[in-house]
Amino acid sequence: MTADFAAVDWGTSSFRLWLMGFDGQVYGESRGSEGMQHCTTAGFAPVLEDHLDRAGAAPGLRVLICGMAGARQGWVEAPYADLPAPVTALAAQAVQLAADKAGDREIRILPGLAQRDPAAPDVMRGEETQLLGMARDGIEGLVCMPGTHCKWARLEGGAVTGFKSYMTGELFELLRRQSILRHAMPDEGRFAPDDPAFVAALDQAIADPAMLPGALFGLRAGQLLDFSTREQALARLSGLLIGAEVGREAALAAPAHITLVGQEGLGALYAAALERAGYALNITDAETASRQGLLAAAIEIWGKK
Amino acid sequence: MTADFAAVDWGTSSFRLWLMGFDGQVYGESRGSEGMQHCTTAGFAPVLEDHLDRAGAAPGLRVLICGMAGARQGWVEAPYADLPAPVTALAAQAVQLAADKAGDREIRILPGLAQRDPAAPDVMRGEETQLLGMARDGIEGLVCMPGTHCKWARLEGGAVTGFKSYMTGELFELLRRQSILRHAMPDEGRFAPDDPAFVAALDQAIADPAMLPGALFGLRAGQLLDFSTREQALARLSGLLIGAEVGREAALAAPAHITLVGQEGLGALYAAALERAGYALNITDAETASRQGLLAAAIEIWGKK
Repeated sequence: MTADFAAVDWGTSSFRLWLMGFDGQVYGESRGSEGMQHCTTAGFAPVLEDHLDRAGAAPGLRVLICGMAGARQGWVEAPYADLPAPVTALAAQAVQLAADKAGDREIRILPGLAQRDPAAPDVMRGEETQLLGMARDGIEGLVCMPGTHCKWARLEGGAVTGFKSYMTGELFELLRRQSILRHAMPDEGRFAPDDPAFVAALDQAIADPAMLPGALFGLRAGQLLDFSTREQALARLSGLLIGAEVGREAALAAPAHITLVGQEGLGALYAAALERAGYALNITDAETASRQGLLAAAIEIWGKK
Repeated sequence: MTADFAAVDWGTSSFRLWLMGFDGQVYGESRGSEGMQHCTTAGFAPVLEDHLDRAGAAPGLRVLICGMAGARQGWVEAPYADLPAPVTALAAQAVQLAADKAGDREIRILPGLAQRDPAAPDVMRGEETQLLGMARDGIEGLVCMPGTHCKWARLEGGAVTGFKSYMTGELFELLRRQSILRHAMPDEGRFAPDDPAFVAALDQAIADPAMLPGALFGLRAGQLLDFSTREQALARLSGLLIGAEVGREAALAAPAHITLVGQEGLGALYAAALERAGYALNITDAETASRQGLLAAAIEIWGKK
């Protein structure tokens, strides 16, 4: 048995490749930090060929890619697909690379998703593949996908029907490293999901999300006035930001069942927030979801021939 | 007639000096961009002496300073005064510079204010002098002071009794220049307080302040999907941030009379927001307020001898 195709999740700052059969079996893998940002100067093709070699791919193996490699500033633009988006729509709109870029190899890039609603415009690239991978595994309803730009998406009847992005992860980094609050923060610093300062801030912001903007400067003042340590300020900043996001969503639609993508690091912080807000959690894994989504799309494109 | 003292408002990135009589008359002035940030490396004394010369100060004229020159990282730290803070308390806690820094000249720096409430810690430096200048002019009640860190303060019986800082101005700069939203923003760009994109965002955020975090990424998506121009995205970002701040305060205490400090630029944007939220505005000028506050404190310190 050999692989039917190579599945690639090519993000802004990460690269993951699996050699897969249409039956879902994984024959090899390779991963690295050569994301889109690296490749826009270093080139995409050499990075892909290198990882195919490392994973042990047969010559001429076809490749299916999702993620930022398909952005306008990526390798080749794969224009956004529209909602509602089932796997068939995503697969049908995959863009095949021309020979000047792909050589003899067949390479296709899956599109991202666009929500073309003037009152709630939104886009994603990469998460749509994870979502369709979850749909393949029978997941339905609300999905929370923590990250630099956390996505709240809805899966209905095997299709993505709507979503909303929060810049919570990026705001956290900007505020702790670039704003006046940096003077109140430790250089590095981790905290657990049950850290008292994190949990107290979560509860405040979940109960009253609009308090967020007026609570930020207090992190600096609280440290100047010796009410809190730098480590507490960091945990509180995270709790306020995640709490305001989760509390807002919980206020818009009563918390019920939700699927959370990711269980370590940021995922564990969101798990604490979602549980405190009253959601019933089903936790799943981002990499598995990506691989399942790429598999589902590959079967649509090649497996039925 | 000659000046009784020199009044100095020494901010993070600005310097303003007036030669004043105890009767309020201004005999000369000088201003520059040598704020605290400049002086921590270049030195404070040469900048002060240069501006005293330029304004035409008599030899040995005494000097009263407010603002960031009194911060820990400033010239000499003037520890925070506590609430409630009348002019007498501020004047009594002014710190006199020792001869190694001041030479033969008598130089005093007014303290900032601290709100030592563990549930709402806050600090200000410079605005307290403006507030006491307003109190001297008979202003009472709620005061809104737009800036990098906008202050909402309460004046009662001639004293500052409480305040709250919003990082709205800093968030605007961080988001437009350092975040993913920078791709959706013009390099420069101004808009009027009646700009339709600004006003629409104000109204949304005033009515529902908790919508802010979930509306930010849409500025980038809206531009990617051709729903808005870069100029509209900039105006909308400002409207969302200012609207969430004003709407939050309006939700905490029913809008009534308010004094707004500043009428141009940012002041005009806040005037639009406050009016749309239902406040009755009294507009005053920041420089006049600083000068009046320094005068009131100088009279306390020197005028009664």
